[in-house]
Amino acid sequence: MENSNKKLQQGVSAQVIKRLPRYFRYLRLLLNENRLRISSGDLAKMMNVTASQIRQDLNCFGGFGQQGYGYNVTYLYGKISEILGVNENYQAVIIGAGKLGQALCGSPVFTKRGVEVIGLFDNDKKIIGKIVDGLNVASIDTLGDFCKKNRVDIAALTLTSKNAPLAVELISSVGIPGIWNFTSYDINQTNTNISVQNVHLGDSLMMLCLSLREKYNNEKEHHSGGITE
Amino acid sequence: MENSNKKLQQGVSAQVIKRLPRYFRYLRLLLNENRLRISSGDLAKMMNVTASQIRQDLNCFGGFGQQGYGYNVTYLYGKISEILGVNENYQAVIIGAGKLGQALCGSPVFTKRGVEVIGLFDNDKKIIGKIVDGLNVASIDTLGDFCKKNRVDIAALTLTSKNAPLAVELISSVGIPGIWNFTSYDINQTNTNISVQNVHLGDSLMMLCLSLREKYNNEKEHHSGGITE
Repeated sequence: MENSNKKLQQGVSAQVIKRLPRYFRYLRLLLNENRLRISSGDLAKMMNVTASQIRQDLNCFGGFGQQGYGYNVTYLYGKISEILGVNENYQAVIIGAGKLGQALCGSPVFTKRGVEVIGLFDNDKKIIGKIVDGLNVASIDTLGDFCKKNRVDIAALTLTSKNAPLAVELISSVGIPGIWNFTSYDINQTNTNISVQNVHLGDSLMMLCLSLREKYNNEKEHHSGGITE
Repeated sequence: MENSNKKLQQGVSAQVIKRLPRYFRYLRLLLNENRLRISSGDLAKMMNVTASQIRQDLNCFGGFGQQGYGYNVTYLYGKISEILGVNENYQAVIIGAGKLGQALCGSPVFTKRGVEVIGLFDNDKKIIGKIVDGLNVASIDTLGDFCKKNRVDIAALTLTSKNAPLAVELISSVGIPGIWNFTSYDINQTNTNISVQNVHLGDSLMMLCLSLREKYNNEKEHHSGGITE
């Protein structure tokens, strides 16, 4: 536990770990194009980083990049998948079968990372019983029973923020160890043993608005302060 | 331009700016509960940070927290909204009217941050013409004309990653300055003047899988290494 912030996996630092999902995406792209070897230089160009960064990051896995030969894409993809837990066959449920929950249920975002959505829950009688991508929307009251019969690793929270605290309590009580949080509600992780990953779409949109505001202000300044030709 | 990474707005550091969306959310919660004053201590408890962090962050705006009196929630909310560009009445279009695009279109995530969705575009003839939350799904071919008639600040990209590069080219050519990217495609910002905010749902899910894997491994170690009672 105590070393989880330092060396996470097989001597790979947390800094490198954070960059792995991006490597994973690019390596999958290469595999899709049947490119089985790539040099650090070519990968660097694709990913818009330096070749030395690539070499530094990927050397953590042991030196499987060979001078003049490049990286073995399949091996690297497999290794990174393993570290990221892509091949663990995790199972997820979606809590909140509104538009976002339904969109997520049918999205390849899960299958591409080896996660299977096995349940979809809601508290709205109008939605319960509906079929979404082959899954029956079940009543949230049945989540406990469902978790006794099925291993559930992840609960994706796609309900309103107002209902989030109650849902988190429920998730904790039925023993689901991971939450993928799409609500704006901040889950207090110090009180629970749940792993939480927040999406916080609103925060992301606000950061975009902020950078637009900066951009517009700069353009205005540049305009008013510039030399007219 | 050159100081955008140091002091972004009125002497507020980039580090503090990053935390503002979270303050914004909590202050809105307080306003919804008609709480017009809050002490740094109470806000700290709510937000699960230290009171000294709160004071340090909010003092950047000028000392409007008074000893024994607390912060003026309305003023603070207004000030943070202003900095984040919430009141700029930005207008957005959604590119990709599949399930995720449709879910986003009807989501309060835009309106809550003062952004209005004014258009929804797709290249699929089966979807074009459909009405989604009062908006007609238009052909992507008409985006250029649309942008001549309407100010568009943000394009939310909710199409497949495969179609993303072409869409980014189009967005750039019609002059939309901001992209909210929901695809797994990495937009090369060095070549464009577009502000990009990435959601990268897949990366987020992978980080969750990784932390679950860590958690399971720790439990296993703890189990096998523990003293049996």
